[in-house]
Amino acid sequence: MKGRVVLVGAGPGDPGLITVKGLQLLSTCDVVVYDRLVSEELLKFARKDAELIYAGKNLGEALTQHSINEMLLKRALEGKLVVRLKGGDPYVFGRGEEECSFLLERGVECEVVPGVTSAIAVPSYAGIPITSRWFSSGFTVLTGSKADGSSIDVNYIPKKGTLIIMMGVSKIDEIKKVLLQVRDINEPVALIERGTTPFQRVIECVIGNMDSCVKEHGVSPPTIIVIGEVVKLRNKLWKYQ
Amino acid sequence: MKGRVVLVGAGPGDPGLITVKGLQLLSTCDVVVYDRLVSEELLKFARKDAELIYAGKNLGEALTQHSINEMLLKRALEGKLVVRLKGGDPYVFGRGEEECSFLLERGVECEVVPGVTSAIAVPSYAGIPITSRWFSSGFTVLTGSKADGSSIDVNYIPKKGTLIIMMGVSKIDEIKKVLLQVRDINEPVALIERGTTPFQRVIECVIGNMDSCVKEHGVSPPTIIVIGEVVKLRNKLWKYQ
Repeated sequence: MKGRVVLVGAGPGDPGLITVKGLQLLSTCDVVVYDRLVSEELLKFARKDAELIYAGKNLGEALTQHSINEMLLKRALEGKLVVRLKGGDPYVFGRGEEECSFLLERGVECEVVPGVTSAIAVPSYAGIPITSRWFSSGFTVLTGSKADGSSIDVNYIPKKGTLIIMMGVSKIDEIKKVLLQVRDINEPVALIERGTTPFQRVIECVIGNMDSCVKEHGVSPPTIIVIGEVVKLRNKLWKYQ
Repeated sequence: MKGRVVLVGAGPGDPGLITVKGLQLLSTCDVVVYDRLVSEELLKFARKDAELIYAGKNLGEALTQHSINEMLLKRALEGKLVVRLKGGDPYVFGRGEEECSFLLERGVECEVVPGVTSAIAVPSYAGIPITSRWFSSGFTVLTGSKADGSSIDVNYIPKKGTLIIMMGVSKIDEIKKVLLQVRDINEPVALIERGTTPFQRVIECVIGNMDSCVKEHGVSPPTIIVIGEVVKLRNKLWKYQ
């Protein structure tokens, strides 16, 4: 009998933010293949006899994607229920599409269980609502580190609305330069490091000094960069988290 | 003793997509104040003696927001743990910020538990990954129905990347007009009605005929509009959901 693979979004870091459906699959499956940004706490919910495989996908490790695909395929063909546990949501810069396509093309069932994306939850936990009736009726989420090694493309940046840049810290100089082609130098910025975890750190700045801010404070990945007027609401809302 | 209010994201429709943390609060709280788009299934998890209040917020019912705020405040001041259950994520066009600010300004604790947003999960369930290494390195989420009665603002639309428009069906003529100022008339569009539920319906078109498509098929809210090259991936991925 053929097994199947389910791509499960593990959420942004706080283990309580996995979905009920995701946890149910995690606690019954035969194999868990998990990424670097997945909370260790979640792995405790797996069956005691489940096989746990660390996929350890770091930035730039594009070469290993093929071996992850092959591993998922092999386990599924052995008749196993495989949970592919990914940080955030599997379809938000998670290469979920590539893994599912690979499996489907080889006749293996692949399903996706969406997760709470870090792009929204991390600002929430830092007291920043990404939309607001008064300040922003939309938001844009971008990756700062594309597969080809480049950073953000100016054509993806609208003139208005909240901007959320994931995996951008290492490309901060380039990002600032691109942002300034479209946005105001004084627009508020929040750098949120290790959001939703007990190690969360938030640094506020503006586009004009976002690069020096990253260097001065030694901000490192995983960090979410939020840009826009909604950052100002933090003073009003932050105390509750 | 003062109570508190927790804004909980109920997810996009499938009751299995609520978070573990959200469900835990829902099943222990004294009062549940829920919105129109929240799954009835979820309410079964509330305590048998919990008070269930339907907030029934429909589009344009801005006048009732104040009474919802007052109701949350009153219950919290009575010492109760109040779960404010919202469709999707509380901070994605959910007026979460307004409710939390109102409570915090009056000395009542307010916390947010993020949820799986419909903006991402609804396309997922329809087989559309909103990002893809090959087709889109970013996405923009907009509301088609702003509080002031207007539709989308052209300044919120980037030239490239996936676009997701929520609550846009009733403003489809206006939306098409604004989109054509920035986007190509042949860009693929998916209209996803009642996504993630057993009643999900998906209609594919292009920007050029999105208005006639809505009319012809009688597409009605809740519908998510997805625009961009990623819609084409549906043929490859959709069979698995």
